[in-house]
Amino acid sequence: MPVWLRLVLTATVCTVTVCAQPEPAAAARRWTEGNQRLVLSEFLQLLSIPNTTGDTAGLRRNAEFIAQMFSRRGVRTQLLESKQAPPVVYGEMLNPGAAETLVFYAHYDGQPVEPSQWTTGDPFRPVLMSGPVESGGRPIPLPRPGWPSDPEWRLYARSASDDKGPIMALASALDALRTARIRPRHNIKFFFEGEEESGSRNLARTLVQHREKLQAEVWLICDGPVHQNRQPQIVFGARGITSLELTVYGPRRELHSGHYGNWAPNPAMLLAQLLASMKDADGKVLIRGFYDGVMPLTEVEKSALAAAPDFDAALKRELWLAQTEGGGRRLEELINLPSLNVRGLASAHVGARSRNVIPSSAAASIDIRLVAGMDHRQTVERVVDHIRRQGFFVTETEPDEATRLAHAKVCHVARERGYNAVRTPMDLEISRRVIRALERAHGEMIKLPTLGGSVPIQSITEVLKTHAILVPTVNHDNNQHSFNENLRLQNLWDGIVTMAALLAME
Amino acid sequence: MPVWLRLVLTATVCTVTVCAQPEPAAAARRWTEGNQRLVLSEFLQLLSIPNTTGDTAGLRRNAEFIAQMFSRRGVRTQLLESKQAPPVVYGEMLNPGAAETLVFYAHYDGQPVEPSQWTTGDPFRPVLMSGPVESGGRPIPLPRPGWPSDPEWRLYARSASDDKGPIMALASALDALRTARIRPRHNIKFFFEGEEESGSRNLARTLVQHREKLQAEVWLICDGPVHQNRQPQIVFGARGITSLELTVYGPRRELHSGHYGNWAPNPAMLLAQLLASMKDADGKVLIRGFYDGVMPLTEVEKSALAAAPDFDAALKRELWLAQTEGGGRRLEELINLPSLNVRGLASAHVGARSRNVIPSSAAASIDIRLVAGMDHRQTVERVVDHIRRQGFFVTETEPDEATRLAHAKVCHVARERGYNAVRTPMDLEISRRVIRALERAHGEMIKLPTLGGSVPIQSITEVLKTHAILVPTVNHDNNQHSFNENLRLQNLWDGIVTMAALLAME
Repeated sequence: MPVWLRLVLTATVCTVTVCAQPEPAAAARRWTEGNQRLVLSEFLQLLSIPNTTGDTAGLRRNAEFIAQMFSRRGVRTQLLESKQAPPVVYGEMLNPGAAETLVFYAHYDGQPVEPSQWTTGDPFRPVLMSGPVESGGRPIPLPRPGWPSDPEWRLYARSASDDKGPIMALASALDALRTARIRPRHNIKFFFEGEEESGSRNLARTLVQHREKLQAEVWLICDGPVHQNRQPQIVFGARGITSLELTVYGPRRELHSGHYGNWAPNPAMLLAQLLASMKDADGKVLIRGFYDGVMPLTEVEKSALAAAPDFDAALKRELWLAQTEGGGRRLEELINLPSLNVRGLASAHVGARSRNVIPSSAAASIDIRLVAGMDHRQTVERVVDHIRRQGFFVTETEPDEATRLAHAKVCHVARERGYNAVRTPMDLEISRRVIRALERAHGEMIKLPTLGGSVPIQSITEVLKTHAILVPTVNHDNNQHSFNENLRLQNLWDGIVTMAALLAME
Repeated sequence: MPVWLRLVLTATVCTVTVCAQPEPAAAARRWTEGNQRLVLSEFLQLLSIPNTTGDTAGLRRNAEFIAQMFSRRGVRTQLLESKQAPPVVYGEMLNPGAAETLVFYAHYDGQPVEPSQWTTGDPFRPVLMSGPVESGGRPIPLPRPGWPSDPEWRLYARSASDDKGPIMALASALDALRTARIRPRHNIKFFFEGEEESGSRNLARTLVQHREKLQAEVWLICDGPVHQNRQPQIVFGARGITSLELTVYGPRRELHSGHYGNWAPNPAMLLAQLLASMKDADGKVLIRGFYDGVMPLTEVEKSALAAAPDFDAALKRELWLAQTEGGGRRLEELINLPSLNVRGLASAHVGARSRNVIPSSAAASIDIRLVAGMDHRQTVERVVDHIRRQGFFVTETEPDEATRLAHAKVCHVARERGYNAVRTPMDLEISRRVIRALERAHGEMIKLPTLGGSVPIQSITEVLKTHAILVPTVNHDNNQHSFNENLRLQNLWDGIVTMAALLAME
């Protein structure tokens, strides 16, 4: 359709709908069509502020920028400060007479970046591309004010999807509702944290400290991707996470592999043998007790899973995978089981930089995803017990000479904090109301018991005795946590509609 | 002993010995005592010229510098050029009437460097240290001319030991012999190559091209360390080498480990399982046929091995090793067996840079040391067959979409060139004469069938139908191939004596 015709049609629909009673989703869709350039301009500013873990100054600038974004829209904002963590951006729009409160959660921090890997260069210089870089997407200018964008265009920047996209969608949804003169029925609160990517270590403390103002009927967790087939979905929980860094040792110093190869133990091989003992060829974790306590799916959850589209074949093609783990079971089903993932390996060098040495150590970084019924501390203990059963002396401090001379195999384990999974029943009254609001906006939704990715819902539901439901909006192929993170524009526009529907829900 | 007394005693011994018949080793020892500063000054210049593989200009500057070093000493030098490789520095001192020729081999190139790992900073800015850096060695100035150095001082620089040290020792031995008016009895030739550390790919071609002038009774390979207990040794062969780079694949792009962990295959785990299948817990290689053809030791070789000192316990203490591979057999014995060594691992990141991803690939770098009776090409085939038996589709080109969609497990194998091992019988007449010359200089020597490290002897013995014997001189803890490479000064002084004894042998 030519642009002029599209603009005329949009204007027509707009006129017709406004004359009827204002419906939040339709109002948001209408507003978005006319204001894409406006949204993108503000979003580029937000994405330009570096937000990686440890960048204290950058994270604070993000918090202040977001607080201003929401203040400008009539939200009373406040930075909840703590000594150990970046500030939480808190905001409220109280509704006189409202009995219920909805809290919208998102996070503004991002995973570490390696600019040299990014096709677009600096991850904090957002670039609009005509499509995915893997498919030949090229940099393009922003659309002109009032002109529509192509739904397949993508914005490349760290946190474009994870998780500044939903924050931008929420701010824009407020604009859309105000333009359509739609007021939220409930008290609306916003809670945007800045340390999710480093494990939300201080979240529970902040929740305890501000327990009063954070009470709610439900926390809506605005994070994560929609289904791989691009259909919107609603998710009633998320996996928990914990992680470990393992280091095993060979000779005190790197040795010439000729003079000592065959005599000095090789730590890279010891590590390979240790890791190989943890999973079978089908991906099943072989650590004793690893699956103990896993909460089985209810009948409602099983039915919802069965109704979800099977996208495995398409996804395998997209990812160049001839085979997957789990004996051919579907992704949606497997996500309801825990995983043990080697997220990195390092020992001396490979390729052009390799040298003929026996390395002095080898390291693996592991993350474990937990599901409802598992405890992250106990799970780590089981992994450590497994390492011991493979003959390793386990230490949590750098092993000294005496330790290494006393034990044939030594493994240094650095534990990182973790949190447990949560699964909110799909048949609670509040669950049904959230489903209804979203299905009025988008039609039939995919409903899943568990999001694969982890969000620190557990401290929210435990400290505040509330429920949490996840409302993912971004594209599944957004490369979050990796290089070339991006947000597909149509997901941003649909996200604004989603947020408007929730802000104004019954 | 105070320095002044030591100087007086040296002078006395000198006078007495010169009046008797000149003995090469004693003459070299005497000359060295008085000329340490001179030797070190020239050596520092040589070590300051970068010599890593691929640095064409640096390698040529090394060759030219070395040619000048030997020209100045009356050697007719020439650079043997080839298009593909750095020049070989060739030199000759012909002796009218000599029936035999001895060729002294060394190499002037060095392994890659990573300056950030070096305690002394730039690997090409040599630093004299008061001892090993691990034991608190500190930078010290060069000794004053005529003053002795401490035998435990160490010179830190790339190739200080491997293999510029022996080149410096040879040049100094020429000085010592000339000072003592001792003339070599045989024709002496020098052959210093510049691509040993990258596998001596063009060595065989050069040998063929200059076959006439390179004929010799024996090639003396001046490379490698003395015994770990610091006793001098003579070695009658060396292991061969070949190497492989393995890459295994997961999803086409890095994936969020939460959303896909437990479904998308993890290449780091696949690699761990593959590597673990290659060796048992005791270090024995499990690849079918790996040990086939290995030539057993002769009775003479077994006796020599049994007579060599057992240094395993001390070495284990020094290297912080509670246990070694090979079921407790001694290093000297195990060196006569082939080894398979993981010299590096890489997949995504560990530690502070780790991210919650399923990596898209994982790589291992492997070097294999071969012993007499094995063929390097056949050995690589056996490894590749093993990888196939683990269910991998093996490819030598970057696997494309179709390949990855067609095979559940794909392994990219990049083969590097290799060469075979050689073992010269210890009881040949020339072997006995070399032993005699060295034992006159140093007393009883340790005699070993095989050096653990690889030197490209095979092309020498095969192309020239000659024998090769290794004469190691540097300290065993020289960190060759790694960072903080160093040469213990006493090994340099002893090396000059060794070279003088060989240059003037009967």
